[in-house]
Formats: sequence, C-alpha cells, structure tokens
Amino acid sequence: MKQPIGVGMVGYAFMGRVHSQAWRSVGAFFDLPLTPSMAVLSGRSAGRTAEAAESLGWSAIETDWKELVKRDDVQLVDICTPGDSHAEIAIAALQAGKHVICEKPLANTVEEAEAMAAAARAAAAQGVRSMVAFNYRRVPAVALARQLVAEGRLGQIRHVRAQYLQDWIIDPEFPLVWRLQKDKAGSGALGDIGAHIVDTAQFILGDLLTGVSAITETFIKERPLADDSAGLSAAGSGVATGLVTVDDAALFIGRFAGGALASFEATRFATGRKNALRIEINGSLGSVAFDFEEMNELWFHDHTLVPEEGGFRRILVTEGGHPYAGAYWPPGHGLGYENTFTNEIKDFLEAIAGGYDPSPSFEDGLQVQRVLAAVERSAGDESRWTAI
Amino acid sequence: MKQPIGVGMVGYAFMGRVHSQAWRSVGAFFDLPLTPSMAVLSGRSAGRTAEAAESLGWSAIETDWKELVKRDDVQLVDICTPGDSHAEIAIAALQAGKHVICEKPLANTVEEAEAMAAAARAAAAQGVRSMVAFNYRRVPAVALARQLVAEGRLGQIRHVRAQYLQDWIIDPEFPLVWRLQKDKAGSGALGDIGAHIVDTAQFILGDLLTGVSAITETFIKERPLADDSAGLSAAGSGVATGLVTVDDAALFIGRFAGGALASFEATRFATGRKNALRIEINGSLGSVAFDFEEMNELWFHDHTLVPEEGGFRRILVTEGGHPYAGAYWPPGHGLGYENTFTNEIKDFLEAIAGGYDPSPSFEDGLQVQRVLAAVERSAGDESRWTAI
Amino acid sequence: MKQPIGVGMVGYAFMGRVHSQAWRSVGAFFDLPLTPSMAVLSGRSAGRTAEAAESLGWSAIETDWKELVKRDDVQLVDICTPGDSHAEIAIAALQAGKHVICEKPLANTVEEAEAMAAAARAAAAQGVRSMVAFNYRRVPAVALARQLVAEGRLGQIRHVRAQYLQDWIIDPEFPLVWRLQKDKAGSGALGDIGAHIVDTAQFILGDLLTGVSAITETFIKERPLADDSAGLSAAGSGVATGLVTVDDAALFIGRFAGGALASFEATRFATGRKNALRIEINGSLGSVAFDFEEMNELWFHDHTLVPEEGGFRRILVTEGGHPYAGAYWPPGHGLGYENTFTNEIKDFLEAIAGGYDPSPSFEDGLQVQRVLAAVERSAGDESRWTAI
Amino acid sequence: MKQPIGVGMVGYAFMGRVHSQAWRSVGAFFDLPLTPSMAVLSGRSAGRTAEAAESLGWSAIETDWKELVKRDDVQLVDICTPGDSHAEIAIAALQAGKHVICEKPLANTVEEAEAMAAAARAAAAQGVRSMVAFNYRRVPAVALARQLVAEGRLGQIRHVRAQYLQDWIIDPEFPLVWRLQKDKAGSGALGDIGAHIVDTAQFILGDLLTGVSAITETFIKERPLADDSAGLSAAGSGVATGLVTVDDAALFIGRFAGGALASFEATRFATGRKNALRIEINGSLGSVAFDFEEMNELWFHDHTLVPEEGGFRRILVTEGGHPYAGAYWPPGHGLGYENTFTNEIKDFLEAIAGGYDPSPSFEDGLQVQRVLAAVERSAGDESRWTAI
Repeated sequence: MKQPIGVGMVGYAFMGRVHSQAWRSVGAFFDLPLTPSMAVLSGRSAGRTAEAAESLGWSAIETDWKELVKRDDVQLVDICTPGDSHAEIAIAALQAGKHVICEKPLANTVEEAEAMAAAARAAAAQGVRSMVAFNYRRVPAVALARQLVAEGRLGQIRHVRAQYLQDWIIDPEFPLVWRLQKDKAGSGALGDIGAHIVDTAQFILGDLLTGVSAITETFIKERPLADDSAGLSAAGSGVATGLVTVDDAALFIGRFAGGALASFEATRFATGRKNALRIEINGSLGSVAFDFEEMNELWFHDHTLVPEEGGFRRILVTEGGHPYAGAYWPPGHGLGYENTFTNEIKDFLEAIAGGYDPSPSFEDGLQVQRVLAAVERSAGDESRWTAI
Repeated sequence: MKQPIGVGMVGYAFMGRVHSQAWRSVGAFFDLPLTPSMAVLSGRSAGRTAEAAESLGWSAIETDWKELVKRDDVQLVDICTPGDSHAEIAIAALQAGKHVICEKPLANTVEEAEAMAAAARAAAAQGVRSMVAFNYRRVPAVALARQLVAEGRLGQIRHVRAQYLQDWIIDPEFPLVWRLQKDKAGSGALGDIGAHIVDTAQFILGDLLTGVSAITETFIKERPLADDSAGLSAAGSGVATGLVTVDDAALFIGRFAGGALASFEATRFATGRKNALRIEINGSLGSVAFDFEEMNELWFHDHTLVPEEGGFRRILVTEGGHPYAGAYWPPGHGLGYENTFTNEIKDFLEAIAGGYDPSPSFEDGLQVQRVLAAVERSAGDESRWTAI
Repeated sequence: MKQPIGVGMVGYAFMGRVHSQAWRSVGAFFDLPLTPSMAVLSGRSAGRTAEAAESLGWSAIETDWKELVKRDDVQLVDICTPGDSHAEIAIAALQAGKHVICEKPLANTVEEAEAMAAAARAAAAQGVRSMVAFNYRRVPAVALARQLVAEGRLGQIRHVRAQYLQDWIIDPEFPLVWRLQKDKAGSGALGDIGAHIVDTAQFILGDLLTGVSAITETFIKERPLADDSAGLSAAGSGVATGLVTVDDAALFIGRFAGGALASFEATRFATGRKNALRIEINGSLGSVAFDFEEMNELWFHDHTLVPEEGGFRRILVTEGGHPYAGAYWPPGHGLGYENTFTNEIKDFLEAIAGGYDPSPSFEDGLQVQRVLAAVERSAGDESRWTAI
Repeated sequence: MKQPIGVGMVGYAFMGRVHSQAWRSVGAFFDLPLTPSMAVLSGRSAGRTAEAAESLGWSAIETDWKELVKRDDVQLVDICTPGDSHAEIAIAALQAGKHVICEKPLANTVEEAEAMAAAARAAAAQGVRSMVAFNYRRVPAVALARQLVAEGRLGQIRHVRAQYLQDWIIDPEFPLVWRLQKDKAGSGALGDIGAHIVDTAQFILGDLLTGVSAITETFIKERPLADDSAGLSAAGSGVATGLVTVDDAALFIGRFAGGALASFEATRFATGRKNALRIEINGSLGSVAFDFEEMNELWFHDHTLVPEEGGFRRILVTEGGHPYAGAYWPPGHGLGYENTFTNEIKDFLEAIAGGYDPSPSFEDGLQVQRVLAAVERSAGDESRWTAI
C-alpha cells in the first residue's frame, strides 16, 4: 500500500484547472511512490471556491490560504495564484513543513525570489521539498532535447533561438486583466512566457545565461478595465480604462557561459501564433528544433551523417523509450498540454519520496528571475549589456 | 445536484485504460447532465482486474461480465474487449436495460453487427441508448471538417483520400497477438484501423460508400506465438509459431452516393508512420486535410478566395469556438489522444440525458461493417466492384 | 573542342518553352560531350513559329515537321507536340537517323507505342538513340530516392502510394482544350499526369506493376469550346460547348512484381493542389516521401536507427554529392521545375555521345502505356483485376 | 525590333555564374524593352576567364575591368566581385556613362557606399541607372509579402523576426576563403547574409530601422589558408593557418521608424540550415512568414477572418497573378534560386528603358551599409543602442 500525501491547492483559475487534472490523473499513468489525495482547495470567494472544488474534484475548501497551510491533511501545497502572492504563501508553507510546488515565474522580484530560495534551502535541510512549475521541461520532446544535448549529440552549442509567441491581446479592446498589471504579475510577456523560454533554454543546454541586451515595448498603453481579472480572458466593462503597466513584448540577445549566442523573444502580439513556444539549438555536431504548437515532435539534425543524408528529422516523441511517453499510449497517439503537468507532479512526488531536491528548484527559479531583471534593466538603460 | 450514473467497464487493456481516463476526467471539463461514477470493472483474472481497478480508479470488480451487466449500480456498460465478444456483451447489456458504448469495429461479422443493431433499436424504444466508439469523430479538427462540409464550404465533394498508417508489426519477430488472429479480431488492419477511416470519411462527408474494389495482403504469414495477448505489444516466446490469419494491409477504391471518388489504405507496414490517420477531401469550393499525428490541426483551402491568396491554411483547432475545444485550455494549448474519448463520453452522456440516439449509432457501426465485408469480398474476387 | 549537335524541336507551347530553356542552359551547368545548337523550330503557323523561335532562341523555323526531320543541321529531334502526333514524328525521325527525345506519354495507344519502341530498337542498332521525357525522374530528390532504394536502404518494399494532384479544370467554364479531347490527348488525367506517377514509381522501385484495379471519372462532361487549344489554359468562347472525352480523374490500386502494394491517383480536381506529384514508399528498413510542390526535399525515414531517434528527415537535396545538384548552386539554393529538363537533356546527350541507350527508353514508355491501357480496361470492366 | 544593350560582367565565380544564367534566360521569359547581349567578361587570369566566358556564354574577355568599362560594346556593367572592389569599379563605370548593377553588400564601408551613392546620383542626372543586387526582393513570395503589407493587409506592423541561417563553415578545417577576410569581404555573416535580411525586412515593411543593439562572434578564430579563394568552397592547404578577421555570426535587435520591434540573426554556424533566409512579420491585421528553403511558398495569416477559420495558409506563389510568376510555368511548377536574378535583371532593364531609378538603388544599399556599421559599433560597445 502506497503512502498517501494530502495536497492543498491555492487558486483555481487556468493553472488551478490544469494542475487539478494532473493530480487527478497522475496515479493512473505512473506507478507512484506516494498516492496524492486532492484534499483542500483555497480561494477568496467561498461560493466560487466550492463550485470549483466540486467540478475539479477537491474534497474541502478554505477561503484563506493561511488556513490551508496549517491543515493536517495537507502535506503538499500547490501554488497557482498570480505572482504577487507566491513568496508569502510559499515561505509560510515551507516553514509549516509542507512541500511546495509553485507556479512560475517564481516571484515578481529578485528579492522575493531570494527569500523563497532561502526558505527552500532551510526547508530542504528538514526534508521538505520545493519545485517551481516550469512545466515545459516535462514536454517529452523537450526532455528528449535535453537528453541529446547531455549525451553530447549536439557537440559544442553555438546558437540558441527561442521564441514564445502568442496573440491573445492584440485587440486594443481586450481588457486590463491581472496579467497586464505590474503589481499583480510583476511583468508582462517577459515574466509570463519569457520566463518559460529562459528556463527551457537553460534546461536543455544545462548552461546559464551570463548577460543580455534587451528591448521591451508596450504597444497598447491603455485598456478597458476588466470586470473579472480571473485569467487569460475577461469581458471588458467598455467604459473606464486603465494603464497597462507591463510589457507586451520583450526581445533580448545574450550569451551562455559555454559560449553559445542566444536570442529570445516573448510577445503577446505575434498575430496568428497561439502558443508557439519555439526553440532551436545548433551545435557543432547537430541541432534540435521544437515548437509547442506541435508538441509531440522534436526535430533533430545529426550532422555526423554524410551531408547527402543529413536533414532535420521529425521524431514523434511518443515511443516507449522516450521521456514520460511510455506511461501513456502506443506510438503516435499524442499527448496534450495537460500531460506536461502530470509529468511534473510525478517527478515532484518521486523527489519527495526519494528524499532529494527536485528540479527545477527555487534556486533555478531565482536564477530565471535574475535573467528577467537583467532584461528589464538593460531595456531601461539603452539596451546596454547587463551581466546576470 | 446532477443525477449520478453508474458505469461498468468490460476489459482494461489499451482501450480500457484510455476509457478510464475519460470517465475520470469528463466531469472536470464539461458541465454534464449526468455524473458518471466508475462503479465496476470486469476482467477474467481476479488479481489483474483488481490491480487495474486500483490504478484506473474503479470501485469494484467482477470476473464475469455477465455479473457486471446485472448489477444495480451499473446503468451504463462500456465494452473494451476484442471484437469477438462485442455482440454477446452488448446485446445482453441492452436487454438488461443498460446503456452501451462499444469499442469499434462494432463486431467481427455483418451478422453479429445486424443482431447488435436490432438489439439497439429495440432498446432505444425503451429509452436505452447505444453508441459505437469511433473516437476519431471527436477529434476537434475532424469535427470542424464535418462542420465545414455540412455548411457547404467545400461545395460538391469530388475526392476523398484516406489512409491509416501504422508500422508496429513490421518486425517478423513481433508475436501473434490477438489482433493478428481472425477468430478474435475479425480482421487485421482492415477492421482495426480501416474501420476508423471508413467511419471518419462517411462522417465528414455525411454520405455513404456505395461500392468498393479492393486488395488485401498478409506480408508476414507466420509469427512467434505470444505469451500474452493483451494488446498492441507483447513478448514473443521465441519458439513456437502460428499462422497470421488476418490482413496486414488493405487498399480499396470506392464511390460515395453523392459522386465522390475515394481511396482508402489501412496498413500496419507503413514504416515510420505511427498513427497517421489521414484524410483529405476535395470539393468544388474547397478542401480539408487532416493527419492525426498532428491532431490539433486542420488544413483548409478556401477556393472562393482569389487564386493569389489561396492555399491550405493550418487552423489550430484550439479556439473557444471550435468543437469541444472550449472545454479545455486557451488557444494553442493542444489536446491529446485521450481527450477524444472524453469528448465521446460527454456526447454519449448528453444523449442519454437528452433522450435521443447518439451518433455514431450501432446502425452506423453496422454500415461500416458492411463496407469491411465488401472489401474482403472484393479482395477475394479479383478486386471486382462490390456494392455495399 | 566539343562536337556540336544540331537540335530540331517540334512544338513550342508549354513543353516547347521549357525544353528550350533547357537546351539554352544545359551547357552552362554541365561539362557536356556534345554542344547542342538550337537549330530549327517547327510549328504549323509561320508567323507564330517565327515569333516563338525568336523569343526562345531557335535559329531557323519550319512549318512542316517533315522538313525539319530531313534537315542536315538537325541531328536530334525533340518532340513537344500533343500525343496524337508522337508516333508519326518519332518514327520518321528515327528512320532518318536522328536521335529522338519525345514528350510523354509516349503515345496515345499501346499500338502506337509498340511501333515506336520497334523503331527505337531498329535505330539503336544503328547508334541512333531515343528517350521518353519523363522529366520527374530527373528531380534530384527523386533520383536520390531511386538511389536509396537501389542501395537497399529501404529493404523489401511493401507499399507505394502515389498521387498526382492538380486543380486547373475544376471550373466548369474552363474550356475544352486539347488535353480534354481523346483524339488529341489519348486520355485525360490518366495519360497526362498518371503516366508520370506510374513511371516515377516504377523508376524508384526498379520494379514493374503486374496488375491493377481501377475507377475513372469525368466530373464535368461538357465544356465551352476553346478558341485556342494551345496548352493548359485557354479562353472559352462562351457559346458553343463540346463533350469532354477523357477522364478527369483516375484511381487505381495495383501490385508490383516484387510484392509491393500500390495505390495511384491522378486528378485535375484536387482543389488547392497545383502540381502535387507525391509519392511515398515504405520498405522493411525505411521509407521515403516526396511532393513536387516542395521539389528540393526528400523525406527519408531510416528504420535501422533506434526507435527513439527515428523519424522522417527532410533532406534538402541540394548538396554537391546529390544527383545533378552539384552542377548548380551551393547547398540550400534550390532548383526549379525547368532544371529537371536541363538534367534530362544532359543525360540524353551523354548517352548519345557514350553510345548507349538512355533511360527511360521508348520501351519504358511502352510499358507505362500498357499500364494506362490496363487501367482503362479495368475501369470499364467493373474494376476487375487486369494484368499488365 | 528591340534595342540591344551590351553587358559587361566583372567576376565569374558564384555570383558571376548565376548572373550569367539570368542574362542568358531573361529574354525568353519576359518581353523586354531592351535585348541584352552578353558582350564581355572580365577576370584577372586570361586563361580562366576565357574558359568561364565559353562555358557561361560571354562573347569576349578582358583581364582588366578598366578596359571592360571603356568598351563601346558595353553599356551596362554587372559587378560580381568581392566587396573590396565594388566602389572603384562602380564609380568608374558610372562616370563612363555605363549603367551599373552591383552585387551586395554595396561596399565594405559606409564611406565607400556614400561615394557610390553620390556617383549614382550624379549619373542618374545623366540618365545612367544603378542598382544593388539584393536578389531576394525578387523572390515572388517576398514580393507578394511586400504587396500585402503595402495594401495594408497586415495592418500596423508590430514584429519582425528575420534570420539568415547557413552552416557551411562549421568545420574548423574549412579554409580561410576570401569571405572570411575583412579586407576582401568587409565583414562576415553580417555583410554577406545579414545584409540580405536587413534589406528584405526594410523592403517588405517599406520602413527603415532606426537603431540596433548587437552582439557578434567569431567561433573559429584561425583556419587553414585556402589554396583558392574563389568562392564558398575551397580546399585547405592543410599546413599554414591564418586569422579569421570577420564575424561568424551576428545577432541584433532593433526598432523600425513605424514602431515595429525586430530581431535579426545572421550566422554560418546554424548546423543543418543551408540557406534559410527566414522572415516573419506580425501586424495588427495579419502576418506573413517566409523561408527561402521553401522559396515558392508564402505563409499568410489573415486575422480579419473569424478565429475559428484563422491560421497560416501556405500560398504557393506560382499563380499567373503573382509577382514575376506569370512569366514562367503553370501553377505549382516552382521556380529556383536562379530565377530571382532573372527577375532582378528584368526590372533593371525596364528601369533603364523607362528612364527611372530602379529599386533597390545605391541609396538603399548605403542605408543597409549604415545598419551593418551600426551593428558593428554596437557589438563593439557593450551592445549599446546605436542609432542609424
């Protein structure tokens, strides 16, 4: 009989929904060392939280996350709130001895992230684990890319080009949801989706950015106030407007410690691109390319073949021997967005049971935060090169 | 408070696993008129059935499906067994007043399918519903293709080219699993995957095949006996061999009632193709193309545009207004194989609650069976044209 | 100093234009054993032939091909007329001791093709060479596919799926050009483009079709008479109409001598497909796929790799070591349609100078003609299997 | 009878070969106002120049370009030499009253380019025309992209992402050809291919870059000396080595006057990418995307459609109504690299005959040179923002 572990989740919007699906499903796909129970959901409105708990499958609710953190039936806290509350909740939970998985970006500032990383270190000394939810690491194709790089199949890495392209706010009438407010979200495209490509690139390379030069822009500077700031979409009130206080797009170029040159672009104004997290990496022996819009595919060019047989091959990352894929369906029966969270939670539970620190750690999240901060500093200082 | 409905599932191999995931998840995505409870799982081996029930989330087990069918806590029977048992189980369940969803192909022979369709008609008169699980109809991109055709956007349909390409048995050492045995599976690639493209094509066109001319082939005529006939994969015993009694590939050309010409190919020997259910349809006003290996995309060519702006466009079928897609994630966050079953079950539950016959019905399944039988007859008679 | 060879071309419409470009360019790309001079162009109208000769670069004109064939400054005759005149011109030229390259399909009937093949055999005994212009064999990617198959890289061939998809006559108002008239063109999509995929498939496999089962259709049975029957396009007169006497589409399935199953589709009603000559071949060790709409690419799946690294790779067939490609530009600087003819003429000149029979020979053209005839017979006889 | 115009070409390596093919072919495709005659080729070695003239079809040779410029049978000078000689030759030719088409980048320094632009202005006042050979503007798909932007179909432009990716020097043993020497080539990837994407982006947008922030890198700092510095490839001597004095890669971000953000990357180390000139442009109403490796395709997303029907469509830019395409073959019969030069020369001849300044002018070439210089300055100054 597997040991149970009670989970308490804070927040039930977009991230809360997909985390719930992962908690619900993880045990059916993986042979887990711990059996998660969906114990408690917390949200500010009792009515709406209860409704969410019923549809998402949580056994109890709290209207104050501080109560959730204290509960005996909660051994693991899953933080799905906007970035402005991450530090407070995570630190409280860790100090209460609860394992913590926290949505990205880790925090809204480097200072918060430092405090969180310090709390994580202290907790780890007590066997309490923490993880930042960069779910795209758990796309099988991304994990395969990491594997190829780690095995040296790409040789010395020369180039990284990473983009995260969306278009959900190109309409100037799209309202001022929380993701467009600096006090809630910390930054705009940069922290929301730029954080993902920074983490994904650093993960695949197993290397860190050492400096950046950046520009950012807010194309639409004022928007209708939102009636409801719950997530990616919301109806505008049509009357009052407010200032957009975050970036719509961030572009930066940088260098990795190992010598690779990199370009990054995070934007919510790439018309026609819906969730195109793209990364291409070129090394002396080969290359990989990935686009989340076709998430089951990794393109791999093996430059050690004769030139006449070279070319980017489309690996359908659904084979039993591929990362995570063996837990699901036969080859060619693709996974979806939700499965990346299932994989992530499985890895977290294994780390908890195994007594080791999972990856990406809060330390990793802090390092990404430093990159984001350097991007903002450079963009505010004539794009000057800014060390990380 | 939604009315509960108890589900009993027969079989827990590949299909049983993915149906379980759908039953587990459907309520979190859709606002259902009925709340399914995963009541009973049946399988022949008590030990293995209990194990499966635990990991897949079923509350109780039976080792005889006849007991499952009788149980008061079961109002709906989900048949996930090989084709040789479909007729007996489905007819018994319907006669017991249970709603039935049955995996495809509906049966192993036209005669069995006719008996099942008759039972379904009789049951429907009592408000008992039945459905055959052609899940690919519930791929959002396929449903969108149907919608475009139904709205007349493709004009008069001229051409259908449909393929279902896999390669999982190209190794002659792959063992003689049940899917390669005529008494269990009815036919080979033809019934297993050919049935899907026949149904998908007829569904999208809203039209029926009237005749076919066919060839079939068994490339590897003898294979090692399998230790375990549980599903798509199995370890060969390495000593004894047995005859492959089904087709490895089936190719046929045909005509639809409305005048379209069609070609179909179902094969397990398309090296490098894993689960490529492909269909392209050309009409006087436009075309659509689909490949399940990129299941979140539908390619649409609108021929009413000026030629200089024409071209197949890649619609990412993840918008809120797309079939099924609104229940899941924001645009660009793709679905996976499992979600097609979730969509299917949602439609079935709505039909049960709404008091109407769901689609595809057993009658639809019977019609597909007739196509399969015509293919086999033509292939056995010098490819002569065979009416359906 | 290279020996010159005088060329006389019959016809100056679409094929004549592209052949002219090849004759004009071949010497700049390839180090030829013979230096072609564009000596004479023949056409029925003196004025229009003279105009064409000037723009296309021919030194002299004739208004009767019989005169062209007799001229001393012509040692090679290039036949670019509709199929109904191929046999007469080719046989006369061969008997006059001129080398002949003839557009495809070789003839309008098997009988004509047989007479041509007999004349070619007789001429070859005198060192006079002949070739049928299946130019798609000279696409570098197609030649590379042949090379991979010949080297055994695909193992035993199991499947061929070939399509040639166009859409230029889907408008019912498109006029009755010569390609839609049986007496001129022999057949419709079948002979015009179906011939190409039959030849391409047989060429890549190095194997012959042994039988087929077919359906054909004429979707639009009556069309406006054309003012001008010069080629692929023409303005309709808008008043009188005439019967379309050829097929709009032909679908057939067949078997190769070596055991491969094949499907073929040639149609001018594939809305949105412009010149999609597509072929995919699956063997026990690998697969290739090609689409002329992306003519510089060959997709190759090497099944001998571990499954985790398998996948169709996009070989950009522009490397120096690729067939023909080294004569042109650096890697990645693609070729166009016209270059396939340049390559073809280079091969023909080398065969003439080298004293061997080029490929595809008239014998090869005759064999394709037999396949086309079998398709028509099967289509007219309830799709019955028809041996070739 | 068209007026003839005598052409003199300087240089016969890669660019000389492809220009020759264009001069040879242009009259067969386009109805030109002037009939070019391939009069004189100049090169330093008499023997090799004579050989090139014969194979490429030039009537006479000179071993000193100064003689070529003086000749009466030369009215137009085509400069295909490395960048270090562009200014001297172009200015001399213009002063001699000869029309000039000059390969890109226009010059090796801004100063040279300024002198050339001044000479071009002076010459234009006398009816003497000049053009810089940014051939990629003449890819039909690129010209179509320009057309869509000019018509407002993309709305306000927000983003440009442009890359020119090659991999021909990733082998450290590849020798030190002239393109890797600053005194000959001016710069490396930046001037050779970066110049193309700067020009292409500015052309499609009809807008200019106002500033950039950049990094550049030379990955391999020392290479074997080349025996032969003729072009893209050369055999290394294997003994002595020399310093690489140009960049291997250049990355920069910038802003357009109209407000668009842009990223550019030019590299010869993008393993597996052969000639991937890529550009994607996002505007408030739509987007376009292009990759030269599939040069006959433009991807267009029309955001004014309902979201459910949106998506990037693959326009095969081979319709009669597409830029340049009507001069060639029927739809779907693609063009190759060489045809872009044919189109360019046609435009130049029309401008000469029409008495207007062609585009891109030397002024345009100078502006690109200023961008390249700003990139180098920024890269040498901590990536600081550098106005153009």
